[in-house]
Amino acid sequence: MKNFIYTSDIVDLNNFIDKSIKLKQLPNKYSMMGNNKTLGMIFFNPSLRTRLSTQKAAQNLGIKAITMNFNDEGWPIELEDKVVMDQNKSEHIKEAARVMSIYCDFIAVRAFPSLESKKKDLEDKVINGFKRYASVPVINMESSIAHPLQALADAITIKENKKNKSPKIVLSWAPHPKALPHAVANSFVNITKRMDAKLTITHPEGYELNSDVTNGVYVTNDQNEAFKNADFIYAKNWSSFNNYGKVFKKDLDWMITKSKMNLTNNAKFMHCLPIRRNVVASDEVIESNNSLILNQVENRIYSAQSVLKTIIENG
Amino acid sequence: MKNFIYTSDIVDLNNFIDKSIKLKQLPNKYSMMGNNKTLGMIFFNPSLRTRLSTQKAAQNLGIKAITMNFNDEGWPIELEDKVVMDQNKSEHIKEAARVMSIYCDFIAVRAFPSLESKKKDLEDKVINGFKRYASVPVINMESSIAHPLQALADAITIKENKKNKSPKIVLSWAPHPKALPHAVANSFVNITKRMDAKLTITHPEGYELNSDVTNGVYVTNDQNEAFKNADFIYAKNWSSFNNYGKVFKKDLDWMITKSKMNLTNNAKFMHCLPIRRNVVASDEVIESNNSLILNQVENRIYSAQSVLKTIIENG
Amino acid sequence: MKNFIYTSDIVDLNNFIDKSIKLKQLPNKYSMMGNNKTLGMIFFNPSLRTRLSTQKAAQNLGIKAITMNFNDEGWPIELEDKVVMDQNKSEHIKEAARVMSIYCDFIAVRAFPSLESKKKDLEDKVINGFKRYASVPVINMESSIAHPLQALADAITIKENKKNKSPKIVLSWAPHPKALPHAVANSFVNITKRMDAKLTITHPEGYELNSDVTNGVYVTNDQNEAFKNADFIYAKNWSSFNNYGKVFKKDLDWMITKSKMNLTNNAKFMHCLPIRRNVVASDEVIESNNSLILNQVENRIYSAQSVLKTIIENG
Repeated sequence: MKNFIYTSDIVDLNNFIDKSIKLKQLPNKYSMMGNNKTLGMIFFNPSLRTRLSTQKAAQNLGIKAITMNFNDEGWPIELEDKVVMDQNKSEHIKEAARVMSIYCDFIAVRAFPSLESKKKDLEDKVINGFKRYASVPVINMESSIAHPLQALADAITIKENKKNKSPKIVLSWAPHPKALPHAVANSFVNITKRMDAKLTITHPEGYELNSDVTNGVYVTNDQNEAFKNADFIYAKNWSSFNNYGKVFKKDLDWMITKSKMNLTNNAKFMHCLPIRRNVVASDEVIESNNSLILNQVENRIYSAQSVLKTIIENG
Repeated sequence: MKNFIYTSDIVDLNNFIDKSIKLKQLPNKYSMMGNNKTLGMIFFNPSLRTRLSTQKAAQNLGIKAITMNFNDEGWPIELEDKVVMDQNKSEHIKEAARVMSIYCDFIAVRAFPSLESKKKDLEDKVINGFKRYASVPVINMESSIAHPLQALADAITIKENKKNKSPKIVLSWAPHPKALPHAVANSFVNITKRMDAKLTITHPEGYELNSDVTNGVYVTNDQNEAFKNADFIYAKNWSSFNNYGKVFKKDLDWMITKSKMNLTNNAKFMHCLPIRRNVVASDEVIESNNSLILNQVENRIYSAQSVLKTIIENG
Repeated sequence: MKNFIYTSDIVDLNNFIDKSIKLKQLPNKYSMMGNNKTLGMIFFNPSLRTRLSTQKAAQNLGIKAITMNFNDEGWPIELEDKVVMDQNKSEHIKEAARVMSIYCDFIAVRAFPSLESKKKDLEDKVINGFKRYASVPVINMESSIAHPLQALADAITIKENKKNKSPKIVLSWAPHPKALPHAVANSFVNITKRMDAKLTITHPEGYELNSDVTNGVYVTNDQNEAFKNADFIYAKNWSSFNNYGKVFKKDLDWMITKSKMNLTNNAKFMHCLPIRRNVVASDEVIESNNSLILNQVENRIYSAQSVLKTIIENG
């Protein structure tokens, strides 16, 4: 593993999950591994879990983390090639990536989509620009279309909590007042497709995800049907993909409630957080013994730590 | 000590002050104590002394500090229970506190009052919410109604500088152009009430502090009378408590001047900073040999370090 | 060296450059030198290279760096003496500098000019205020009129890359859409004047730099003439000094292009970054083998590290 941009950068997923679970047992075992190494973390968007868990992962390996909020502490960057830069962008991504590569041993980047131009968002220009121009490994802390550190934490959580060899996992759309990206859903689908699991996606009509991602996955608009026999319910909102970035359903019909959870095979409840209580899911579901949300939170440390450790070992 | 929310969390104040003064002699003596521990510092409001001194205290104990400006780098949090979160709050304090507890071994929080709703501010919801939902110790870096790290630093400073067993300490209101919280005044009163000292509070009419705090303390509206025989003058502005958050006196009559200091028993001058020069106090007073403002600043390190150390020892 | 405010704080420049180049060979050789020391870095303006390279330099010496964005995370500071502080400035620079001196072993400051009042900017009040009131060493991370850490990195880069004993160095004005400070140009002129080099400055009429700085340096308005036989072309935009802060030439005539570089003695190209591509210089020039921009970036680490190390040794 040279970079960690998409879940596909993990070659042997099952083995990677196992190694991450092992790391969790002795998180400080490799505390000298990152000696004299620096992780540059740059944020174009807000973050709580990613910001903290990635710093914690770095600390556990003895890596020094430097954080930078690019918009406030830096300036807008130009992504397009051959542009006459006489407008508001002060620096080209070529320089930004090359400069970061000189000061840091890894570059981690968070950059959300505009949700305005589907074409541009699908190119995932910021993270791929950093990958292209950096001379050090680049790690995706959530890009326009992917959140692989979250997906890896989710996969670890599923492996730790599954009760049968090939559990039924349901990714269910849930309501949200704002237009949200597809990154978490995309990466979750991509990683669970590679696990020993039966994946179902359920969402209201009009909320189809990118068919390149959901290709081969069973999709239904009947949430109740989807929940039957489910072992894991993964709730997540996303805005429309076809009617790009639009939100046309704001009622709470699709909220995950206790009565819906009762349709399942005593399923575990998952969500990547932050979660809108009593919108995405009811208090009852979030607080129930079947809720794994804090397990996912904890596994964000070992997801990031496992990626950093693997990159160092392969370096 | 499990948490440090209010000065009342210190059980044996005199002993705690003595231990803090001892720590100051050898600040790096316990530099391995915090090995592999992380302090999460979250700010809902600006900070200079608290930000730096708490980081320095953590460093002295070998604790890694991670800072986060919650408003810019995160998002607004919901404090109310059972709310349908379909407005502008992205995350509930329950999740925020529980998540921070997974990534950090201590959580330090700064959250000022609104100065709009007295009832809400008195509930001190942010710091108490973190205390309630966190599974790790929570430290108050100034809340709606208390600033115990400042008060402890002030108590250390008084103990170091008092010339008689039971000094006369005067907390004097002073002018300020903006509406300020009551937190510093509250915690100062609460801590000095427990010291061997004679406390007097003086302020213009209409600036009475919360009577639950000042209960039993001598209060006068005659600043000159108050200053007589004083050993310490602690200047501080606060907005009206009864006419909540209002400022109805902006002239400089109550500024601490050299001629007022001349009424005292060669009193030391104290203020928590930042200080508006020639508004709260004159340049002359601030720069005089009797000014202890930088001693207070320095003791902020040992106040925070003593709290962190005690929490680790009790943990 | 007690402070590093201007390039003139380096007494023996040639020796200092040599020591910096030596440090670059073994950057972690002195990793215990800064044990228990804290560098406070305060930013009144954005920064990428300075922010990261100074942190990296501190890490290499084992110094803990604390960053603070003064405007967002703190408040506006008062620079004038004897002011009645009843307006928007919450703290005087006297307190800010003295407080930082208690928590930090070094203070590094970035504060750009207003480009509105030439008189005020020339006084360089923020950095000089910190120097005056701090009791610990103060380091300039770019002030109103100087950027000595950049100039030192530039001098190191020239020494490493020069092919003859006394190279011809050309500082060329180049276009930019916004009004920029004179700090980089000033410090570059000041440091190259002291090197074994032939310095030429070229700019359009009306863009004369401060004559106190350029005194004794050959200046021409003919860019083509200037480039003849040049060994180094240092491109930089600055706003008018005489017509203070004004921009009255926005066309791209003065952009550094390949055909202009062809007039030189196979000159190296330099710029401090961030660079507006195809405005300040063409893509071709920036990407050419003769471009030293990333060498300058790398030398920012050793420039800062050499300054910190020297300050510690002299302390």
